[in-house]
Amino acid sequence: MIAGFGRVGQIVARLLRARGLAATVLDLDPSTIDLMRRIGLKAYYGDATRLELLHAAGCAKAKVFVLAIDDVEKSIELAELVRRNFPHLKIIARVRNRPHYYRLRKLGVETVIRETFASSLEMGVEALRALGFGAHTALRSARNFRAHDEAAIERLAAIAGKGDDAFFAEARRAYEEIERLMVEGDHADARDAGWDDSTLREEVLRRSKVS
Amino acid sequence: MIAGFGRVGQIVARLLRARGLAATVLDLDPSTIDLMRRIGLKAYYGDATRLELLHAAGCAKAKVFVLAIDDVEKSIELAELVRRNFPHLKIIARVRNRPHYYRLRKLGVETVIRETFASSLEMGVEALRALGFGAHTALRSARNFRAHDEAAIERLAAIAGKGDDAFFAEARRAYEEIERLMVEGDHADARDAGWDDSTLREEVLRRSKVS
Repeated sequence: MIAGFGRVGQIVARLLRARGLAATVLDLDPSTIDLMRRIGLKAYYGDATRLELLHAAGCAKAKVFVLAIDDVEKSIELAELVRRNFPHLKIIARVRNRPHYYRLRKLGVETVIRETFASSLEMGVEALRALGFGAHTALRSARNFRAHDEAAIERLAAIAGKGDDAFFAEARRAYEEIERLMVEGDHADARDAGWDDSTLREEVLRRSKVS
Repeated sequence: MIAGFGRVGQIVARLLRARGLAATVLDLDPSTIDLMRRIGLKAYYGDATRLELLHAAGCAKAKVFVLAIDDVEKSIELAELVRRNFPHLKIIARVRNRPHYYRLRKLGVETVIRETFASSLEMGVEALRALGFGAHTALRSARNFRAHDEAAIERLAAIAGKGDDAFFAEARRAYEEIERLMVEGDHADARDAGWDDSTLREEVLRRSKVS
């Protein structure tokens, strides 16, 4: 079951189909009917936040609900509806930004994926490589950054809404800590990985302004 | 040099900073000034499509131009301006969708990253796992899908604009081919990787409706 057949829902549906799994798709926009038919998907048109539509589409028997709509308020409304009426369904949600992330996590949605986060890291990796870092170093940096950032956003989700001052103080602290942890992680890595070209890296750090 | 300090530009800047590299950021929105100052970035406000601003910010000496603005027309305008005036600059661009991708590739931008593509694949991997596929199989599927899809979009970029009929015929063909290649790839993988749980996979394929 996939709600939303835009840029995100289409890729999810095509990946599943390539594994032999035909998703049922819910979408508001009748202009996507051709595309869905062309790739042989079951489609239900209409506002997915109407409970009858969810029943008609078969939510009671589904296992996974991919929440791929881009509108933040609709996404939250739909997550609430699914949580309340189909508590067995595992929700995998696309989120636009951090506030959206916090709100879905508060509703108990476990798998929450920031829609531009992975691509942003890929752009960062490309930038590091263009500035002279090796592929391994650039990828490892992005992986470390991601791990720290995902831990931080989970901590922030737990305190979101509990007063802005405490929240922003924690956000600042989290950002600073990520940089500190990454620098420490680099030193630990450097001891373990003799083959990594730290001389090149240092040279790049000295010379580069990124800019 | 990073143009655009929204969801994407911020992650790129923070990743670079965690590697000791302080980016120069161009953004139209003065409300981001606090955030940029807080993380110690050089910032230039104003319309990045004005050539004077690019000069003032130091494009002539920069190596990499991260094009992270979300507005499609502005992005294309800026890519043209940078290509024409600073041909030495490597552009790493965020794109919203396929038409945006094709247009930047036609301008000669080499590194073009679809802003929701990687996250969509991650959602697909989570969905496959929730449906009973092993982590290895799910990740391998996404990796294969990505490789095929990126090859296909490059072929499509080369013929984009050359008459809609030919283009859509090729797009349909490309989508079908991706599914065929993935099924063939699976068989090849299955021969090589005896440890992968193909029995479980087949059972999931039989039982599951995804939905």
